[in-house]
Amino acid sequence: MPSPPALAFSTDNCTIGRAMAVLGERWTFVVVREVANGIRRFDDMRRHTGMPRQVLTDRLALLVEHDILRRVAYREEGQRERHEYRLTDKGFGLFPVIIAVAEWGDRHYADDDGPPVEFAHRDCGAQVEVTVHCTEGHAITQPRDVVTRPGPGIRPFDA
Amino acid sequence: MPSPPALAFSTDNCTIGRAMAVLGERWTFVVVREVANGIRRFDDMRRHTGMPRQVLTDRLALLVEHDILRRVAYREEGQRERHEYRLTDKGFGLFPVIIAVAEWGDRHYADDDGPPVEFAHRDCGAQVEVTVHCTEGHAITQPRDVVTRPGPGIRPFDA
Repeated sequence: MPSPPALAFSTDNCTIGRAMAVLGERWTFVVVREVANGIRRFDDMRRHTGMPRQVLTDRLALLVEHDILRRVAYREEGQRERHEYRLTDKGFGLFPVIIAVAEWGDRHYADDDGPPVEFAHRDCGAQVEVTVHCTEGHAITQPRDVVTRPGPGIRPFDA
Repeated sequence: MPSPPALAFSTDNCTIGRAMAVLGERWTFVVVREVANGIRRFDDMRRHTGMPRQVLTDRLALLVEHDILRRVAYREEGQRERHEYRLTDKGFGLFPVIIAVAEWGDRHYADDDGPPVEFAHRDCGAQVEVTVHCTEGHAITQPRDVVTRPGPGIRPFDA
């Protein structure tokens, strides 16, 4: 059997790998979900998710460091200044990822009573979905209709 | 400030959380990427990714257990029987997730010379992308145009 073509190329600069080095940890993605859902404050997130305090602190710091969340100061009457977290533009850019993960999760990991949450179009109320197509406008429904090819940053792989 | 509405609902049956409990770990996703790229054999994956042997063994077992990969026996002349890994239908269903993650990664984590890999439509060669829209056919380009609403499995949250 011939060697798989992809084996000739390095994974060192794989942008999927780099993206998942930030996101690819359950709690990191959970924090993004909380903030995207309007749950922006440390104590709310901690209570709602059951995350250990230190883990939540670490993940929030990581997400701020990567410019996915930003800290915004607020002060409630008679209290000291605190911070809440908002998505940055880069964080909002994760929406297709969140929806694609939710679709796959709904299909395979929902309880018998169905998914807990739906995404809907604000204007018309119809369900939101993610589709794959090419820039020529062809819909792509079969993964086999997608091929990978070397991009500008491709590098040879030396074992 | 009023309590965020999402805080009233439980995250116990969140399908994003459950999906990311499988995927949400860098190496798990890397293994899926390798197999999707035609790199199906243990030794090839190990060499190509630099993953420690035990970690790769564990992640392959997890992915087989979750029916994302399946093991297929093969035997090269004069060698003992070995196994390679293929995506199942459930694994192929991750394509929109992979492409959505790659797009976001390409935008934010590529080196100066650009992304190493492109996804192209097999038939016409045009670049492949993921878009968000509603089932009524409206394109959704702004995350703020997506709202979440309770689905059939929604459960109250008791702190």
